Amino acid sequence: MLAVNAEIITIGDEILYGQIVDTNSAWMGTELAKIGIKVKQITSISDSAEHIVAALDEAGKRADIILMTGGLGPTKDDLTKDVLTDYFHNMLKLHEPSLADIAAIFEKRGIELTELNRQQAFLPESCTPVRNVLGTAPGMWFEQNGKVYVSMPGVPFEMKRMMTDIVLPNLKAHFKTPEIIHKVIQTTGIAESILADRLEDWELALPPHIKLAYLPHLTGVRLRLTGSGDNATILEQELQTEVEKLSQLIPNYIFAYGEVSLEEAVGDMLKERGLTIATAESCTGGYLAHKLTSIAGSSAYFMGSIVAYSNEVKMQLLGVKPETLQQHGAVSEATVREMAENVRRKLNTTIGVATSGIAGPDGGTEEKPVGTIWIAYADGEKTIAKQLNYNKTRLLNIEFTALVALNLIRQSLPATVDE
Amino acid sequence: MLAVNAEIITIGDEILYGQIVDTNSAWMGTELAKIGIKVKQITSISDSAEHIVAALDEAGKRADIILMTGGLGPTKDDLTKDVLTDYFHNMLKLHEPSLADIAAIFEKRGIELTELNRQQAFLPESCTPVRNVLGTAPGMWFEQNGKVYVSMPGVPFEMKRMMTDIVLPNLKAHFKTPEIIHKVIQTTGIAESILADRLEDWELALPPHIKLAYLPHLTGVRLRLTGSGDNATILEQELQTEVEKLSQLIPNYIFAYGEVSLEEAVGDMLKERGLTIATAESCTGGYLAHKLTSIAGSSAYFMGSIVAYSNEVKMQLLGVKPETLQQHGAVSEATVREMAENVRRKLNTTIGVATSGIAGPDGGTEEKPVGTIWIAYADGEKTIAKQLNYNKTRLLNIEFTALVALNLIRQSLPATVDE
Repeated sequence: MLAVNAEIITIGDEILYGQIVDTNSAWMGTELAKIGIKVKQITSISDSAEHIVAALDEAGKRADIILMTGGLGPTKDDLTKDVLTDYFHNMLKLHEPSLADIAAIFEKRGIELTELNRQQAFLPESCTPVRNVLGTAPGMWFEQNGKVYVSMPGVPFEMKRMMTDIVLPNLKAHFKTPEIIHKVIQTTGIAESILADRLEDWELALPPHIKLAYLPHLTGVRLRLTGSGDNATILEQELQTEVEKLSQLIPNYIFAYGEVSLEEAVGDMLKERGLTIATAESCTGGYLAHKLTSIAGSSAYFMGSIVAYSNEVKMQLLGVKPETLQQHGAVSEATVREMAENVRRKLNTTIGVATSGIAGPDGGTEEKPVGTIWIAYADGEKTIAKQLNYNKTRLLNIEFTALVALNLIRQSLPATVDE
Repeated sequence: MLAVNAEIITIGDEILYGQIVDTNSAWMGTELAKIGIKVKQITSISDSAEHIVAALDEAGKRADIILMTGGLGPTKDDLTKDVLTDYFHNMLKLHEPSLADIAAIFEKRGIELTELNRQQAFLPESCTPVRNVLGTAPGMWFEQNGKVYVSMPGVPFEMKRMMTDIVLPNLKAHFKTPEIIHKVIQTTGIAESILADRLEDWELALPPHIKLAYLPHLTGVRLRLTGSGDNATILEQELQTEVEKLSQLIPNYIFAYGEVSLEEAVGDMLKERGLTIATAESCTGGYLAHKLTSIAGSSAYFMGSIVAYSNEVKMQLLGVKPETLQQHGAVSEATVREMAENVRRKLNTTIGVATSGIAGPDGGTEEKPVGTIWIAYADGEKTIAKQLNYNKTRLLNIEFTALVALNLIRQSLPATVDE
């Protein structure tokens, strides 16, 4: 069975000029993948008749489904409908149900229907209108040489409603699509190249209908297994088997399966094990606390944080010894250990985590250049300190420090504490 | 003088499958527009050699500049470099400076350089390498038939750094583009529609070669004046005059001119006036401290923060009275006032700022629904408390609370303190 391919064409200048980010296409790609339709290309073009025609010709060569968004507004700079009318050698004809929908919208708004909006109810004869219950621009479904062309408005909530209610179900019915299943395995603390070395033999042994993708993110490399086949149950089992094989190759580097963030994974561990946590932050300046508290329900395990940017605050609120700061400096193993151990005691939590470093761009010295960072973890049983060396931008140094700290927590947490 | 056109080609399945949203292209479109280069098409394709070649052929027909991102990773699913090597009839050759950069990154990480990463230093002979100081994949600049082709990594911070430092300046030098000057006026605390009313008459009186754009962001509405002409000096003067007229129409809502963030603007005020600040955070969970410390040099005015997520911490570390919490609850004017006043005293700063609210999605009640938030500002002379009501997502509630708090600081700061 052949894979069904789609292409997305977005029409309008806002995306090209960077005035808006194209989130529509990502949403469409995800939804199409769920019904086994692969997006082969996304093309963003301006409201120009010849450019639209060129894009349609190109897409028609490759794809079975061509989905268009945008250019359906009532004003003269919106050309999509006229271009499609010519492209499919059609005439415009009043579509009464669409006119009724448009009139209803104006009535609801208490405004009089304008001629411009009335014109939106005139549609190419050969198209099957796609109802738009949220806006004044109806969609259009065309079929030609076994290919399907659908034109929708660019307004996200209008497009999404039309896709969900009408276009996706009709596409699934119209095309016999293969079952496609994705499995995401989230890793952290291992470089893509090293990961690739570790996985090479297993990857080469994958059956042809299961593919592996490396998706590097700030947190780490997300691995995505994509399988396609006729039988969802069998495919699911095959993928599970491969995920298990993979897991045994890199057990320590996997923090989650599926779309779970590192802070979420750490939060779940803390909650399940009944542990509480507090942070003492210098260079991360509260960002680690923010990461932890960005998760709903984090108040169950996160008690608080002391952001000690000045040495005074480190001594006064965190009880770091003046001698420690004098002898080793604020950015040192000794200081960060005291910070982690003391914040744990002060806030009466199971775990204390601390960061101290030079985020930059200023503040670096010969022996402690920008990017010199110490982090520590303390849980009463043990205290683990770790030195990091980054030299990225200030914000990235902060971001990476928080991520490495979260990973240190994940790897160091005690099984449970019984009191 | 002819307009210079660019096309962007993003390579990789993540965007097509909707796993990530393509924010790179929007950023590039904006930056290119600033130097008078118009993006004509954005094309997202998968890691397939023939598809990449087809996209290059198509783009080459229309554009003067073809910018590619993605597909430069060290693993075998990354094809861009090999495809370009063939496309420009090249051979791969070791580029020593790139190898040095890559080796340096691995040395800093304390990991041994792998063969896969070493391979990344082999580049097509005819390309001018574009240095990547933040990652292991160098960029490549090709010229053919008067057109420029640039390939960059898809990792946003690597691509942005290469564009800003090398690609944009070189494109500006290589192509004769019209003088284009942008003036950004940053507003906060005023709705776009109200702003439009206030500015209407002035906007209508703008000369035809000066255009105004409303760019709504989380912080507020960014206003961008764009002028184009042949004489930069005259254009600069014309724009300055218009900016001054504009400023007089909405003085209280402008927090900065140019690409300055609200936290940066507040930081500058604190530094200039010799003031220091500390935060006491409940619902923002350290995010306000993070915003303030995201600015280089913030240690000059930011002393620290007490993130008090639990009531115990509010009482113990911030000295909030038990009665206050009992009578009014943690989310109340009384509590947030004590938090702001006490953190100021505890950390011995000029200013104390506090937040307490229900970020959601859980924790809401009948009389205090999710999105009920109190913030307070204290500087010894006065304490100002303010209630906010949002009902957005957890992260947006946190984000908006921090932004409104920053704006409250901006509006309330004393001129100077002489001790």
